Order: sequence, then structure tokens, then C-alpha cells
Amino acid sequence: MKLNKLKPRLLSGDTPTGRLHLGHLVGSLEARLALQKDYECYFIIANVHAFTTQFDVPMDIRQNTLDITLDYLSIGIDSKQSHIFIQSEVPAIAELTWFFSMLLSFSRVMRNPTVKEEIRNKNLGDNYPFGFLLYPVGQIADILAFRPELVPVGEDQVAHLEMARECARRFNQIYCGVDPQTKDEDYVEQGGLFPIVQTKLSRIKRLVGTGGPNADGLLLKMSKSLNNAIYLSDDPDTISRKVMGMYTDPRRLHASDPGSTENNPLWIFHEAFNPDTAWVQDAEIKYRLGQLKDVDCKKKLIDVLVALTQPIRDRRKLYAADLGAVLSILRQGTSCANELAEDTLLQAKKAMKQDYFKRKFQLLPIC
Amino acid sequence: MKLNKLKPRLLSGDTPTGRLHLGHLVGSLEARLALQKDYECYFIIANVHAFTTQFDVPMDIRQNTLDITLDYLSIGIDSKQSHIFIQSEVPAIAELTWFFSMLLSFSRVMRNPTVKEEIRNKNLGDNYPFGFLLYPVGQIADILAFRPELVPVGEDQVAHLEMARECARRFNQIYCGVDPQTKDEDYVEQGGLFPIVQTKLSRIKRLVGTGGPNADGLLLKMSKSLNNAIYLSDDPDTISRKVMGMYTDPRRLHASDPGSTENNPLWIFHEAFNPDTAWVQDAEIKYRLGQLKDVDCKKKLIDVLVALTQPIRDRRKLYAADLGAVLSILRQGTSCANELAEDTLLQAKKAMKQDYFKRKFQLLPIC
Repeated sequence: MKLNKLKPRLLSGDTPTGRLHLGHLVGSLEARLALQKDYECYFIIANVHAFTTQFDVPMDIRQNTLDITLDYLSIGIDSKQSHIFIQSEVPAIAELTWFFSMLLSFSRVMRNPTVKEEIRNKNLGDNYPFGFLLYPVGQIADILAFRPELVPVGEDQVAHLEMARECARRFNQIYCGVDPQTKDEDYVEQGGLFPIVQTKLSRIKRLVGTGGPNADGLLLKMSKSLNNAIYLSDDPDTISRKVMGMYTDPRRLHASDPGSTENNPLWIFHEAFNPDTAWVQDAEIKYRLGQLKDVDCKKKLIDVLVALTQPIRDRRKLYAADLGAVLSILRQGTSCANELAEDTLLQAKKAMKQDYFKRKFQLLPIC
Repeated sequence: MKLNKLKPRLLSGDTPTGRLHLGHLVGSLEARLALQKDYECYFIIANVHAFTTQFDVPMDIRQNTLDITLDYLSIGIDSKQSHIFIQSEVPAIAELTWFFSMLLSFSRVMRNPTVKEEIRNKNLGDNYPFGFLLYPVGQIADILAFRPELVPVGEDQVAHLEMARECARRFNQIYCGVDPQTKDEDYVEQGGLFPIVQTKLSRIKRLVGTGGPNADGLLLKMSKSLNNAIYLSDDPDTISRKVMGMYTDPRRLHASDPGSTENNPLWIFHEAFNPDTAWVQDAEIKYRLGQLKDVDCKKKLIDVLVALTQPIRDRRKLYAADLGAVLSILRQGTSCANELAEDTLLQAKKAMKQDYFKRKFQLLPIC
């Protein structure tokens, strides 16, 4: 295969454990939209990773895989220039995962702070699937299979990315003979197979949810499992209901009480989504002085969010009416992903002296 | 694909960390030869597993992969009815490994006695590749991808096999709706995808090497890394030298001293390999009475082993002269392995509701 590389490559994606929400929008979707013209984009729907926590509800994983595809298309990912694909349909990812698992020590994987945090947060003890530990290694293959220059990520993914960079350096050193003193940006030029990926942090690192703070007074991240999310696919009534029920400043009992705009989801959302920044600045001052009612600011926010999501809902309606076309987009995207990942795998095998045969493969519709 | 299942299936194989020796012969090769007419046999050369300990010498893994193929053909594995294949060229194995890793808990994998023993024996502490832990999970996929009825194993593999059986039960229960009360032999009949494999222990559980005992007085297993092995490909001179240097009874200083036949490799080998059992019985009595010289018994053993391995060397010479044909046998075997493993994977994905597309694939010569 000749890879016509006209643009640098970008890899990003999501695990289909639920529909996408506003947290995803500011956390990574926005960045993808902004970059899709300048980069050749590969968007992975990581359905195998979803099995780490949902192996017993596989039908949900399937539904979420299709829903996220719809989410992508609805926000304006252009399937003519970007490739949306399903992880489990790209065998090279699983194969590279296995090889990469030889280049990271067990203790290195266990030291990954995101892994440690999840084990602690979910009170898992030793009682989690082995696949849960395979997740960060698999994510390295998700990325490196596409040898991307750029991976836009949320803050919680930085630790994973650092492992991907370590793994790429190590592979390049052991199997491609690259000098360990080489600068990250020179690895490929020096004969390495894998570029040492650059990351790009999102505009807003972590969007809070619509609910109140936890016992430590911290507002929680927007998350399906915390039931505090506004989804990209929510209809105006649902958005309205969620915003109306939003946590604000609990000490403000009357509209004339001064309100705090700090640690207040209402204003965090206005700051994140309201394009009328002059209004927001002015309104925050008035709110702090007790000159603005919560309910009025909420109504304003509803207008903002409904307007923001209206084109998403419109596009969604079109795609949802033709799921055959959506599957076909997925198949095309997955075929392109395979073309590149197969080439990466063959080159990796060559470097590891395990290139016994070539292979040719083709995806077909299921029926 | 329609699988024409005329015979029950058998899966066995080796990790290419070195050439095969007499320990492999009595440990599993003999059983494979005896069963290859009655079973459809799949023999895996598990080159990915070799990376767990040899990731930094990939050329050795390649060489050993080809050597083991030659070993198989030389002992009389019939490539017309059995399938010899390379693990890394069967993507479904890596893909199933990932899915199976969700069905075993981390603590279950760490409790595997073979894993624990290797960590202890090799003094690994926490300092081993993550892929080392993936090994037992991968081995489950090595087996289940071929849905075999039988797996002939050495004693050290029994713990791995038990994990494969657990994993098969669990998959069948979660994704195929099989009742957990079902008897092992009824799982497939009840709608399960994976049979609960039966194991067959080898004739001789563990052949000792040519060297003396360890500090605890125990004779060590024949093993490449202990430098105490007689290889199937050794020439008569090498066999002669190794037998002449063999450890016997150290307390026997003169030929007329009574000798012990217990814990004595010389006699363990005669018992394992000398077809003239009457001579062995008689000679052991004389040896114990001090009526037989070590050197004479060694010469006899050399004759036995040279005769045993002569047809192996003869066949090896033929195959070694045509490595193109050997690669072609490997490609054919690997293609057959893929045909079956792809069918297993598709059925597994269907059961897990992750059958988005079908795929068609073909192995081609590398050049």
C-alpha cells in the first residue's frame, strides 16, 4: 500500500458507554471539528474498551456504538474527509496491543494514575476484569496503529498518552535501531516507525455536570453515570428541564440576595457556551449584586443551549432516518482505517522480524 | 464458511524459544503423532508468546519458528492432514484474547500457579513485561479459537487449561445463554459456542535433563535454558557427547560398586526410550549389583537415541533442503487455521452483538 500522505494525521475517539454530551463537546469534539480540514482524521469508536465495564450488556455497547456514530455525524464530522471506524473491526489494533504489551512493564501499567484512580474511585480492589488493565495498553495501539502526529485529548487522558509516547520510543529503539538520545520530533526521520505523538489539550479541560458538589465541595465532572449530563441528542424540552433543575448558588434564597458565580454550574455553562460574552460579563456582575434572577439566567442558558444543539438535532434527524447509510459510512471509515492499520502492522512485523506472510483483507456488509 | 467436521479437533503447539528436544517428544509430540489420524489437528507455533521473554531478540524467534516447523515435519507430522500455523498470522487469536480478558478477573490471572511459579523461579518481582501476564489469557484464545475437543498437554499446562475451561463456560453462559448448571460435555449442545476442552496428559509428565540435581536434590526438567537438553535435530556425535557426559550415580566410583537406578538420568532415559524393555529390566538389576559399567549402559543409550532420531534427521534433511516448500506448508496451515478461527471470531462477535461487518481475508507469500 502506498499511503498518500498529504496532511498530517490525527487520531481521536470515544468509548461507547453512552451517548455523547456537552462535556465531550468542549472536551474534544470541538477540537476535532476545528482540525478536520487540516488533518486526516481517524475517529475510533472503542467498543472493545467498553467491555471492561459493560461486558455483561453487549447490546448496550452496540447501541452506543451506533449512537456515537450518529453523534459524530450530527455535530458535523464530515465522513467524506474523516474516517469514523469501529475498533473491533480493525484486527491490527488487537495484534499491536499484544506486541506492545511486551514493551511495558507490569509495574509501569499499574503506575498509570488514571488506572489507579479508577480502581480507587470504583472501589474495585482486586476485583476487576484483567481486560481493565489491558485498556491503557490497547489505547496505545488505538493510537499508534494510525501513526498520528496529533492526538487531541482531555486532561484525564494525558497519562495514557505519555505511555503511548514511551512505547513508541521503545519500539523505535529496539526494533528500528533508533538512538535513545534522539529528540522526540526526529524519531521518524531517524528510521523509527512510530512518530512520538503530540497532544493537544482541549479548550475546557473538564466540564462540570448540572448537579451539586460532592462531600468535599467539588463540582463533579459531567458524566452519564452521575446522571448530570446534557446530551447532544437531548430535545429542547429535556434541555429545558435539565437546566431548570440545575444546581446554582444554594445560599441564594431570594432573587435579591447576592449570588456567587464561582463554583456555579449556571455560570460555568454560560461561560462555556454563551457566544454573547458581553452579556455574560455584565450579567455575572448583576448576579453577584442580586440584580438578576436565577430563573432568568437559566432561561437564557436554555436558549443558548437549544440554539447550539439545534443544527446537531437537525442533522441527526436526517441520518437517523437512513441507518443503512450510517452503517455504510462506518464500513467505509473502517475500511480506510484498516488500510492504514494493516500497513502499520506489516511494517511493525517487518521490524520485529515476524513478517512471514502478507495478507489482504476486505470488509463486507453483514448481510 | 461451512465447517465440514468429520473428525473431532485437537489443538496443541509450542512457543518458539528454542528447538524441540526429547522432553518435548515424550511430553507432547508423541501424543500428537498418535492422534493425528483420528483428530483434525491444529499445531500452533506461538511466536507472540516468545516475545514475553525474548522481545529483544526477534531474529531468534523467527529462526526458532522455522526450526520448530522443521522439527514437526521431521518427527512425522503430516502436513496433508494436520495444520501447522504461526500464531501472529492468525489475527482472530489476538482479537479473542482481548475479549476473553474481560471474562477473567485480574486476581484470577495472578492466581494461576504457573504464572506465580515463573515469577518466583525467575525472580521477576514486579519487573516483567505486562505481556507476561497476558500469556495465559492469550493461551486461552490459542485454544478456543479452534474450538477443539482435545488438548494434549504436559503437567505444567494443566493450570492454563483450567482457565481456558472457566473462560469457555463463562462466555457460553453470558453470551450464549447457557445455564450455569450445565455439565461440561453438554455446553455446545445447549447452544454454547465453545466446547469445554478435555485434556490428555502425556505418557511421561516431565523428562529430566542430562545434568545432575539442584541444591534440593531434585533432577531438573530438560530445558534449553538449563543447557541439559538433547535436541531432536542433534547429530549422532552430539548425542554421543551429551550422553557420555550425562549425570549418573555420583556415589559409584568403580564399575563394581553397586549403582542406584533411582534419580539417575541414565536409567530414566533407558526407561523412556529403550524399546528393549526386557534388556532394561535385566540391566537395571545388574547395575544395582555392580555388574554393569556406566560406560556400557551409556553406549547402549546412544545407540537407542541415535536409532530413535535417525528417521527424524533423515526427514529433516529433505525438508531443510527446500525451505520454500516449508514456508508454503506453513502458509497453507495458517490459511486453514484462519478459516476456522475467523469463523469462531465471527460467531463470538455475533454472540457479543458486535457483528457489524463480515470480512474476507487471504494470506499471500511475502514476496
